[in-house]
Amino acid sequence: MKEYKLPIGCDVPETIILADGDFPSHPLALEWLRQCPYVVCCDGAANTYIRSGRMPEAIVGDGDSLLPDIKERYASLIHSEAEQETNDLSKAFRFCLSQERKRITIMGATGKREDHTIGNVSLLADYMEQAEVSMMTDYGIFVPIREDSMFESYIGQQISVFNMNSTALSAEGLAYPLSVFTNWWQGTF
Amino acid sequence: MKEYKLPIGCDVPETIILADGDFPSHPLALEWLRQCPYVVCCDGAANTYIRSGRMPEAIVGDGDSLLPDIKERYASLIHSEAEQETNDLSKAFRFCLSQERKRITIMGATGKREDHTIGNVSLLADYMEQAEVSMMTDYGIFVPIREDSMFESYIGQQISVFNMNSTALSAEGLAYPLSVFTNWWQGTF
Repeated sequence: MKEYKLPIGCDVPETIILADGDFPSHPLALEWLRQCPYVVCCDGAANTYIRSGRMPEAIVGDGDSLLPDIKERYASLIHSEAEQETNDLSKAFRFCLSQERKRITIMGATGKREDHTIGNVSLLADYMEQAEVSMMTDYGIFVPIREDSMFESYIGQQISVFNMNSTALSAEGLAYPLSVFTNWWQGTF
Repeated sequence: MKEYKLPIGCDVPETIILADGDFPSHPLALEWLRQCPYVVCCDGAANTYIRSGRMPEAIVGDGDSLLPDIKERYASLIHSEAEQETNDLSKAFRFCLSQERKRITIMGATGKREDHTIGNVSLLADYMEQAEVSMMTDYGIFVPIREDSMFESYIGQQISVFNMNSTALSAEGLAYPLSVFTNWWQGTF
């Protein structure tokens, strides 16, 4: 049984991918970004990150969303792939894997277009095959699981469970029972 | 074949449910809210809506998120249900159905908690069984379909397709082919 302590990932992440959605504003997220030793930015996310006084390990993307001075000054950090099948988040994830980064926290992957938010959350289900991965937003943390898992929590904590093609789903300790949901909303609380 | 013209729902909606997520900021959304003859607010959404100078037909929810003066002054508009199984959006939807409103546009149902955004988008798949429904956000429009449908578009328009338990999915006129996706992100562009 895999165990998750509260707050999930209370230690500073080893690796952060900072995607190009809404820049994090939660104090814990900003603290992690400040302390994390290895941050990879997706394209435009590097603008705000660099201006906050930090230097990313790499900037993944075609650089089109970078401010001209940052694009010029940090050209050596830009890692671009011509491949158009996957988005910058997936390219950044592959880059991290190529650098042997196996424990990855994703930030900045929500906000703006809701279809992209939904898509990015669902990518966790694919990524978990290759790394220990989670997503932190200003409102909570998404953790993909595929095995029996135990989450520390406090009484009254609000959680949602999404069923990605699972054929079995049950839980103990929740106010509402889980079942094999047929629509996304059924596990939201 | 059902046909959807551009912009989808260019006419002012007959009925709007204004949920309690981020208040809309897109000019078209604000114009619709101004002109729509029948707006139902989910709880706290009524605060901003009423302060913008409009009066909702009803306020659905327990009133806990209403400002004290609004709660007192508009008490007669508050429609509360003790039932805890569904959220305020679904209660507002049922209220609209009870008032014979059959063409409904949902706004304010995204932003803040991403699990709620995902859940609210997915509710469209249930609602479409009982009404003609769509969701407008500051970034686009979600339209649930279950039959062959044709969407007017312009060249280069970015769209995403989510597959809610469909066993068949195909399209003409898209830059990328559709298939029976097994993960949410696969239809995002």
